[in-house]
Amino acid sequence: MALIRMVAMKVVHGGAWSLRHGRFSAAQRAQTIRAFSSLVSPPSKAVVYENHGSPDAVTRVIELPPVEVKENQVCVKMLAVPINPSDINRIEGVYPVRPQVPAVGGYEGVGEVYSVGSAVKDLSPGDWVIPSPPSFGTWQTYIVKEQDVWHKINKDSPMEYAATITVNPLTALRMLEDFTTLNSGDSIVQNGATSIVGQCIIQLARFRGIHSINIIRDRPGLDEVQEKLKALGADEVFTESQLEVKNVKGLLSSIPEPALGFNCVGGNAASLVLKFLRMGGTMVTYGGMSKKPITVSTSSFIFKDLSLKGFWLQKWLTSDKAKECRSMIDYLLCLAREGKLKYEMELVPFDNFHTALDKALGKLGSQPKQVIKF
Amino acid sequence: MALIRMVAMKVVHGGAWSLRHGRFSAAQRAQTIRAFSSLVSPPSKAVVYENHGSPDAVTRVIELPPVEVKENQVCVKMLAVPINPSDINRIEGVYPVRPQVPAVGGYEGVGEVYSVGSAVKDLSPGDWVIPSPPSFGTWQTYIVKEQDVWHKINKDSPMEYAATITVNPLTALRMLEDFTTLNSGDSIVQNGATSIVGQCIIQLARFRGIHSINIIRDRPGLDEVQEKLKALGADEVFTESQLEVKNVKGLLSSIPEPALGFNCVGGNAASLVLKFLRMGGTMVTYGGMSKKPITVSTSSFIFKDLSLKGFWLQKWLTSDKAKECRSMIDYLLCLAREGKLKYEMELVPFDNFHTALDKALGKLGSQPKQVIKF
Repeated sequence: MALIRMVAMKVVHGGAWSLRHGRFSAAQRAQTIRAFSSLVSPPSKAVVYENHGSPDAVTRVIELPPVEVKENQVCVKMLAVPINPSDINRIEGVYPVRPQVPAVGGYEGVGEVYSVGSAVKDLSPGDWVIPSPPSFGTWQTYIVKEQDVWHKINKDSPMEYAATITVNPLTALRMLEDFTTLNSGDSIVQNGATSIVGQCIIQLARFRGIHSINIIRDRPGLDEVQEKLKALGADEVFTESQLEVKNVKGLLSSIPEPALGFNCVGGNAASLVLKFLRMGGTMVTYGGMSKKPITVSTSSFIFKDLSLKGFWLQKWLTSDKAKECRSMIDYLLCLAREGKLKYEMELVPFDNFHTALDKALGKLGSQPKQVIKF
Repeated sequence: MALIRMVAMKVVHGGAWSLRHGRFSAAQRAQTIRAFSSLVSPPSKAVVYENHGSPDAVTRVIELPPVEVKENQVCVKMLAVPINPSDINRIEGVYPVRPQVPAVGGYEGVGEVYSVGSAVKDLSPGDWVIPSPPSFGTWQTYIVKEQDVWHKINKDSPMEYAATITVNPLTALRMLEDFTTLNSGDSIVQNGATSIVGQCIIQLARFRGIHSINIIRDRPGLDEVQEKLKALGADEVFTESQLEVKNVKGLLSSIPEPALGFNCVGGNAASLVLKFLRMGGTMVTYGGMSKKPITVSTSSFIFKDLSLKGFWLQKWLTSDKAKECRSMIDYLLCLAREGKLKYEMELVPFDNFHTALDKALGKLGSQPKQVIKF
């Protein structure tokens, strides 16, 4: 991990190198290279933060020195990495599981094998790989990690989808599978339907013949958003204000009441998901974009027998179920290659990282997912 | 069922009998008795309501005419019946499953077999029985129902416990069993700990070696209440204001963090249960005494992986699991006979029904469970 690399460097050189300067002196670098075996990575340009805080204030792009590529390790030249909300929360220090500072940002991404250690048989330079399960520190140009970390993917995969396939699409896939048995003809309800997870849920549900009821914020350009979601396969799209009616279920035409709902907003938008659910239904919370809590009546639990649960991919990835993670990723990437799984992204050159970060932070209004291209 | 009896009467007599008058004319009664087989019940004094509304306004005690006891039926002279909050909610019309009006109040109770139909072999006059599963219309002196409705119990059972053994103690038993596997040494947390369900949970948990953390309202006579609960087996008893601290778990000495919590209050008292729960824990809501909803943070679901569910005995009694209902009742009554399951009740003569009702409605401050003795 990049963190380990940085900390190790500090120890080797008695603290002479520091993130503040961002590079070795020429003499230090020569000394470092001599200390290692013949195979070393190129220096790595990385987005690092030494303290938690607002990402635009605490992150800097610096060059990290080369590191040894040991016999079981693989050096990967990163191609593209997304800026996910959880990446931002880790930098802010509000995410419960995060690397110790100083740290390199990022958690997922796609890269190309640059060099391999002498004992590595299954990967070769030129292969496309993703860290699977994802791991910290993907926001840099070269990463050296054990070969087991890397999952070789089909090089025909669109780069931006390969870079983003785990955190959001896998969340959508698992949430559709892990909470209740859905059969063709059933339905689900979700808020935050324009999020990438939301868009994936619409499409993955549709492949299974499952109807989706989608709740979105009232916003300018509403018609266009509704059309986009319907083009992805959404059956119903409502704004929160359209649901200010006594009986939301009366708005459904031929769709059955959903047994499963997804909430990534909280507040009123979560209450609307609960209203749509059928007796005995389950709402899964996986985000809280409104920063408002979820409020539930007593009778929803007792008489409507609703269950409320949460989903956190990072925890799921540590469970037994995660053994299947790589085959799920292959499935999702296959859908992406075939154009059956789509979501909006903006590819941004690494030089413009801080502009992309500002967009991801919402400083420039609603923006597509920002994906850094190295 | 009493309801069927009343409706049937109306049909037989072309509507001449009505709840408004509360009795047959002498001629009508003679006609009725002639129309039936030789075995009929005595007239039944019953608490009835013709419309939903405030129980003290809409209930009246009237005499219902005798009814036939058919070959598979049993006539039971009721001995004692409780006034439960759900009985009140049914009369108010706010309970989702309730008898059609006009109706006789009540849902559980204990009685003595008065007479049996010619085909009844397993019950004899003098046996003590309870309707199991419970059914509507127990607030009356004589009930005629199919033999299958009645469960014969040990006559050594204390009458007031036999009358109240299903609605509250069985709820406590099922909630301890049905949501998570608890082992000796584990713990549970609950609010509303002075309720009958709360008291049963403390005792049933203690038999299993399970610690209980109990949350109660701030109230006068607090020390006495805490002592009473500790005498039942409570490990910890806190008032809501005692829990206005940053880290409630710091208040626990040697008790492990609970995996299971019970909420019958809502509002802040529910939030306190959630605070005590350990990662991955479950809170079961079975009541809402504060009439306030339950508010949950997004991170409780995602990062703490809490699950929120509900329990409703009336629904549970219609499930497959309810087959074991009668053996559970026998177990609970056995504990009651041995003095190992205790809770406060006040036995009130039927003549004082409306005073007992006022107490059950909370008009006279905090009162023990009201049990009508016929």
